[in-house]
Amino acid sequence: MEQRVGNYELRDLDPIFNARSVAIVGASTNPEKLGYEILNNLINMGYEGPIYPINPKADEVLGLKAYPSLSDVGKPIDVIAVIVPGKFAPGVIEEAGRLGVKGAVVISGGFREIGNDDLEAALVSAARAGGVGIIGPNCQGINYPANKLCISWPLIKREGGLALISQSGTIAAALGDRAEKEEIGISGLVALGNRCDIDESDLIHFFGADPSTEVIAVYIEGIKNGEKFMEVGKRVAGEKPVLVLKGGRTERGRLAAESHTKSIAGRGEIFDAALRKIGFEKVESIDELYDCAKVLAMEKKRPGKRVQVITSSGGSGIVAVDVLEELGLDVAPLSEAGRARMKEVLPSHCVVGNPLDLTGDTPAERYKEAVLALAEEEPGIDLYLLIFGDPIPRAMENCLEMKEAVDKPIIACYIGGGEVEEVEFKKMNGARIPTFPTPERAARAARSVLTG
Amino acid sequence: MEQRVGNYELRDLDPIFNARSVAIVGASTNPEKLGYEILNNLINMGYEGPIYPINPKADEVLGLKAYPSLSDVGKPIDVIAVIVPGKFAPGVIEEAGRLGVKGAVVISGGFREIGNDDLEAALVSAARAGGVGIIGPNCQGINYPANKLCISWPLIKREGGLALISQSGTIAAALGDRAEKEEIGISGLVALGNRCDIDESDLIHFFGADPSTEVIAVYIEGIKNGEKFMEVGKRVAGEKPVLVLKGGRTERGRLAAESHTKSIAGRGEIFDAALRKIGFEKVESIDELYDCAKVLAMEKKRPGKRVQVITSSGGSGIVAVDVLEELGLDVAPLSEAGRARMKEVLPSHCVVGNPLDLTGDTPAERYKEAVLALAEEEPGIDLYLLIFGDPIPRAMENCLEMKEAVDKPIIACYIGGGEVEEVEFKKMNGARIPTFPTPERAARAARSVLTG
Repeated sequence: MEQRVGNYELRDLDPIFNARSVAIVGASTNPEKLGYEILNNLINMGYEGPIYPINPKADEVLGLKAYPSLSDVGKPIDVIAVIVPGKFAPGVIEEAGRLGVKGAVVISGGFREIGNDDLEAALVSAARAGGVGIIGPNCQGINYPANKLCISWPLIKREGGLALISQSGTIAAALGDRAEKEEIGISGLVALGNRCDIDESDLIHFFGADPSTEVIAVYIEGIKNGEKFMEVGKRVAGEKPVLVLKGGRTERGRLAAESHTKSIAGRGEIFDAALRKIGFEKVESIDELYDCAKVLAMEKKRPGKRVQVITSSGGSGIVAVDVLEELGLDVAPLSEAGRARMKEVLPSHCVVGNPLDLTGDTPAERYKEAVLALAEEEPGIDLYLLIFGDPIPRAMENCLEMKEAVDKPIIACYIGGGEVEEVEFKKMNGARIPTFPTPERAARAARSVLTG
Repeated sequence: MEQRVGNYELRDLDPIFNARSVAIVGASTNPEKLGYEILNNLINMGYEGPIYPINPKADEVLGLKAYPSLSDVGKPIDVIAVIVPGKFAPGVIEEAGRLGVKGAVVISGGFREIGNDDLEAALVSAARAGGVGIIGPNCQGINYPANKLCISWPLIKREGGLALISQSGTIAAALGDRAEKEEIGISGLVALGNRCDIDESDLIHFFGADPSTEVIAVYIEGIKNGEKFMEVGKRVAGEKPVLVLKGGRTERGRLAAESHTKSIAGRGEIFDAALRKIGFEKVESIDELYDCAKVLAMEKKRPGKRVQVITSSGGSGIVAVDVLEELGLDVAPLSEAGRARMKEVLPSHCVVGNPLDLTGDTPAERYKEAVLALAEEEPGIDLYLLIFGDPIPRAMENCLEMKEAVDKPIIACYIGGGEVEEVEFKKMNGARIPTFPTPERAARAARSVLTG
């Protein structure tokens, strides 16, 4: 089933991501091999459909009955992972096509990336002939936690609102790993590889419609089909935020990108203009891609630009104010009524203003008291940026109570808190209070939620 | 003993940092109190001189004999920590002066920061009268690992080349904590507090002459004495790199800074011009302050601007090239001879160029082979930026072997490597291969070593 967007018929990727059965072609009994690791990850992910290891030399792999070939399985197979040497891949796809397989994640390399254009053409021919959608080749696979489908590494189990689409397997893996460790989770992860068939536009379209995806984060070096990207982009940008980091902004970066993906990378300024036209957001670094995506996975974009900073660390508050101002946000002073109320609520040694400096000895409860009182006196505040700049226990619990009482985004920085910080940092992100290790990163991430 | 710099007599801080005995005024038996934590840290740091807890209500604190007052100790005391309520601090300093104490680290607050200018004036009078140098008041203390002198929190034990001077206790603590966890270590840490006596210039001067300090990282909101700062700065900048992050660059940031420290923060552009004139380097964020200081703690600045990127992750290599180019470094292509040699040394699927892409399946040994061969063919390379973009074991051992064979800085990024990365990241930094979590941060840090 295809879906029309502008002039383009987009493949329906639902049968791939929601595959009801998976075969691993090249499943290995050797723990050093990728064919072992990927099967192992799929099992440990808890995939609920049948898994068929394909290995002509083994009866069993990782406790599952193995089959000499796809044809020997004798049951319907929705998706296959291809981990055999590249030269065998077209044959595998041909066989898969005959068996009605809907999609193939081709991990194998040895195609266009090393100049074997003919082999890649043969792969595409086989795919077209058999109606098999291909992700890759030469890619690090896919992960779709809603279907417990991890055909990739590392193993990322936690489900969240963040979809990662990346022309770099390493960058996808690194960001997915952060999302797992910080308890943010992902809605999906796709390493594009050579994009011989399914491309970034197909995937942006899929995650645009995916119910668990709140934000799409893309690392890309060049667009495969510009017109298709624009058509799909405009459609999706109206629905969900899409953040884009472009590799190859500079001249030498561009040449390296063309060498990396053997495709036209595209000039930075033309790319930027296209993003603006679509309504996608450009970011400048891997950290920024992750940080903004993390916030947007938890908080909806909303109008406004006024930010109130509340801090226990004077210096960190000032650093946050600098960045917020530089980003065009409004670090407005409190009103007379707001100041008066703060002086009433807070001990006299607190410095009332914006930043509101609770000073070093503050308990987490004081942040909550300040926010609840400000919510009454200062309805114009659009976002609270809370900086926990010491070991302050119970930050998470107090933030959650604020969040329930106040209908404004709460973004946090936790810094200088030693072991208490380590615990609270994870708890806060897990409780959907987006929390960052420096005031600068928290301020940049806050920017991405407010539309001005 | 004072030291003349230009028009200024600078206090000799050696007797404070190399104190042979310490008294903790306000030592507490209650683990919740700062007077307990600081004494505990000093003991756990392994301080080798006598420690005298001062507490009129206890015979013993943390296993050490306690004294009702400084006068009761009856032995020479070089330095005291003051953790009693602020109103008692001038009396303590007066007594200390009579006893020949050389320095006081006044942790206590309640002075100028909350408008109690008179109390702070009394503190200064007592200090001047008794010849006691004061750090603080209202500060998070000092740490000087060479003398195992930690009068501060958190406990940072590892000795390294990085001196931290900060007008924010939290930022100092956060950076010190990173240096401890990443096995970088510090040569010293000072939280300035209200700077009623000893100021940033005195401390920059001290660490400028300190043998274990390789780089001085400063967070500051405003300069206490501009002329003194310029005189000292010019002297020290000729000896060691000094990195400065200024809080209060923007107008609202500046107002917040003045409110934080109750002193003139200074306009950003004037400050920047002064830094340039001195030869200090301005940085833009807490991460950049730490990252550049980390590299300069391990690597001397040197002429040159040509960087060779070697990566296992194509995308991460491209991202690094973009940032290096944007920073004005030269990501030069390899010479014909260099290319030929690489094609000889490396498997055919590697992409020879700059970045040199070893691709995803590379072992750590291949980086070493590439670097050793390039060292022969490409003497013009000034710095190697190595990106380990997968779980690649033995990265540290191989980097160390390169470092021994090649007289060029080696800076690394480790990304997307899961559990292997966690282990190698720490090992590499500990082995003095400065290693960063993203290619952007590695590239920025690399910039700080090369003078162009």
